[in-house]
Amino acid sequence: MIKTAEHLYIQIAEKLELLIEKEVLKIGDKLPSVRTMSEEQGVSMSTAFQAYYHLESKGLIESRPKSGYYVIFSPRRLPEMPKKCEAVRDACEVSVHEMISTVSQSMSNQEITRFTSAAPPESLLPAAKISKAMIQALRKTPYAGVGYEPVQGNPGLRRQIARHSVLWGGAVSEDDVVTTSGCMDALTLCLSAITQPGDTIALESPSYYGSLQLAESLGLKVLEVPTDPTTGVDLDYLDKAIPRHKIKACLFVTNFTNPLGACMPDKHKQQLVRILEKYEIPLIEDDIYGDMYFGKERPAVCKSFDTSGLVLLCNSFSKSVAPGYRVGWTLPGRYKEKILQMKRNHSISSPSLPGAAIACFLENGRYEHHLRSMRKILHTQYMRHLQAIRDYFPEDCCVTRPQGGFVLWVELDPAVNTYELYELALRQKVSFAPGRIFSLQDRYNNCMRISYSNPWSKQIDDGLKTLGRLIRKLA
Amino acid sequence: MIKTAEHLYIQIAEKLELLIEKEVLKIGDKLPSVRTMSEEQGVSMSTAFQAYYHLESKGLIESRPKSGYYVIFSPRRLPEMPKKCEAVRDACEVSVHEMISTVSQSMSNQEITRFTSAAPPESLLPAAKISKAMIQALRKTPYAGVGYEPVQGNPGLRRQIARHSVLWGGAVSEDDVVTTSGCMDALTLCLSAITQPGDTIALESPSYYGSLQLAESLGLKVLEVPTDPTTGVDLDYLDKAIPRHKIKACLFVTNFTNPLGACMPDKHKQQLVRILEKYEIPLIEDDIYGDMYFGKERPAVCKSFDTSGLVLLCNSFSKSVAPGYRVGWTLPGRYKEKILQMKRNHSISSPSLPGAAIACFLENGRYEHHLRSMRKILHTQYMRHLQAIRDYFPEDCCVTRPQGGFVLWVELDPAVNTYELYELALRQKVSFAPGRIFSLQDRYNNCMRISYSNPWSKQIDDGLKTLGRLIRKLA
Repeated sequence: MIKTAEHLYIQIAEKLELLIEKEVLKIGDKLPSVRTMSEEQGVSMSTAFQAYYHLESKGLIESRPKSGYYVIFSPRRLPEMPKKCEAVRDACEVSVHEMISTVSQSMSNQEITRFTSAAPPESLLPAAKISKAMIQALRKTPYAGVGYEPVQGNPGLRRQIARHSVLWGGAVSEDDVVTTSGCMDALTLCLSAITQPGDTIALESPSYYGSLQLAESLGLKVLEVPTDPTTGVDLDYLDKAIPRHKIKACLFVTNFTNPLGACMPDKHKQQLVRILEKYEIPLIEDDIYGDMYFGKERPAVCKSFDTSGLVLLCNSFSKSVAPGYRVGWTLPGRYKEKILQMKRNHSISSPSLPGAAIACFLENGRYEHHLRSMRKILHTQYMRHLQAIRDYFPEDCCVTRPQGGFVLWVELDPAVNTYELYELALRQKVSFAPGRIFSLQDRYNNCMRISYSNPWSKQIDDGLKTLGRLIRKLA
Repeated sequence: MIKTAEHLYIQIAEKLELLIEKEVLKIGDKLPSVRTMSEEQGVSMSTAFQAYYHLESKGLIESRPKSGYYVIFSPRRLPEMPKKCEAVRDACEVSVHEMISTVSQSMSNQEITRFTSAAPPESLLPAAKISKAMIQALRKTPYAGVGYEPVQGNPGLRRQIARHSVLWGGAVSEDDVVTTSGCMDALTLCLSAITQPGDTIALESPSYYGSLQLAESLGLKVLEVPTDPTTGVDLDYLDKAIPRHKIKACLFVTNFTNPLGACMPDKHKQQLVRILEKYEIPLIEDDIYGDMYFGKERPAVCKSFDTSGLVLLCNSFSKSVAPGYRVGWTLPGRYKEKILQMKRNHSISSPSLPGAAIACFLENGRYEHHLRSMRKILHTQYMRHLQAIRDYFPEDCCVTRPQGGFVLWVELDPAVNTYELYELALRQKVSFAPGRIFSLQDRYNNCMRISYSNPWSKQIDDGLKTLGRLIRKLA
């Protein structure tokens, strides 16, 4: 990485952030003036200013007119983390929840302050650059893309996906990649190819309701595996559960699970691959949030530890570039032929131009640049939302600390039913995802998923204030 | 329809065509000179010329230098139509044929003279106009289409589909339409929504191998219904078979079946709807070839006789505008909510821009114009191929007379195995679809599907000559 002025201000900001985190700098402390900072650190005034702006946008400090910058954040006062959920006795037949379709409907209502969606708002996406890439694609693709592309997908796109695999520790060739219509389609193809109706699969718990519904539509049973809000799926439990419940496949989000935001440490990923090998069962690894990390490095994936082809890695460009383009992919390992057969049977091939446009976008190196700025914005928004929750929600609530992704998970007093809260909030034009929809069991009724994907604004601030008020009323 | 000069030359050509068909004009007969024709018919010389060019392009007459135009076609000598296939005793578990994937692979090999594909070559598609529509769509769609579109599909596209429904006798609103990723995806969604693994469905026989494979991937059993090469599915047989075989749904191509090219008369369509109502079972009506008719009028669909919502009409723009765009749709009748649920679970929504582009293309009225010219070209190519088959294939072969679509079906001497023929032909760089892949039973081994979608050329002529020679060798 090239050291530029941009990184200099980040370095200074990080030092200050560390001091705030360690409570060397406490709430109300005044920071050195910009001039002093510039002289002490041997940087330009403008770099010192940038560092302060950066901390201000994260909600760590504030500027008081004619006085200077003050610390407004303390890590100590943040709510506790929720505990890992308890194990369940049995795998469960999936049934579709009325609740989910109600919540899905509120997602597209523009008048509502939405903390509902685990996806970026359009304003965070590179619409102009991707349009340019689409026009390039129109010119480059034979017959402007009116003909069928190969079943396996656009070769240029597959090449770019292979090229970018080094970022997560992969070394794959374009021939290993199968493109799909978004990540959900990749999960559908993989799950259809490796299971039969009636089979049991393992999912983390709480789990994304879309995965639960997909399992239902394929006639599968689901065992919900206890999941730690920091390190993810409980592997000791899984190791025993696989033979006991005759698990045929696992479907896990390994980085920044939805809704918990848990990220499996590398050691756990290696251990999980060993468990798969022991029982010879496949893992569908949904890495849809992997690129949206807040830390220094992209977390790895199980796929990078997989030597026997048991991991089917699935991902897309929907969380980072263009959800509307529906461009996803899978590295299906030893199941490639089955996946291709399934894709041919169900849709012949993918639409030609969206994939070709994403390939053009990836080629010119704009992707990494865009990701860097998007991660910064998301991290800042996360901090802002977290602090507002601390300020407005009851003190006894627990909140996760995702190190990436778009959502956090709040556990409230057991007396609060969040579906009731959801209905109350909707009348005040505020929405979120109630905890109940993230399980097939009757649980998480006192939990809620809050998305921090929308830019911070007075409306967002008011929305969280409203939620806090309603929660106190229900508690 | 406005009577223009264009239609004048067609009128003259049709009169002559009729005379050739009735053998008033016989092979070798000289036609009146262009000047005589112009005087007799009271039209311009150029109109008379156009009429002769038109007949020449259809392969009915030829121009001999310094001599004039001569008839080179006789209907009498055309091969017989094949008979309706026999009924089978049992519904059959589907199994995937190695053969199909072999044939599919040869489809994309550019060095081969391909009579394989029931789809138009890129040269017949309006690539430039659809590109223009895509650029329009980029400008018109909010955020250039990077965001998700509604699950049900682009509203503009649904409006255009509803508007065009008058062409097949429909009167639907945009709210009845669900867009899909091509017709195959529409069939997949519909079939998944209305059946359970283990159910039996009815298909015409011979039937498109893609439908057979789709049924297999969903764990369904298939009953193959005897099908007349002219009028389609045998309804008396079907009426008895539904209770006997516990048929849960029908999946039929009602206009220009693939591979037979049969077109169900309106009366049969009405009768079929009555049968569905009697047993309360749904019909997935695949109308993918309906717009490609050679006659004066577009054939109707069962959907236009359906008042109880039992017909799920499926179609796409893949055979007429842009297969690579993967834009299809369904009118799922009473199953709409199920289909929407299924679509949301499996892929969230369709790609935004391909659908928006097709909507722009449909809006400006270019579609009908394009269809008119494409139909003329296809009809001409059909005549040319038919005559070459008559000239080069053994006299005892039977050939269907499709009145639309892209393919014809040839029945050879029972001694000829067309998969053997396929392998021999491939070595000579000629390919077609062997009959065996159009059934789950061990039959149609002496049949073959020949596509006339490629423009007539010396290469095509030589390809059919090669096939004829090889058939004689095997017979």
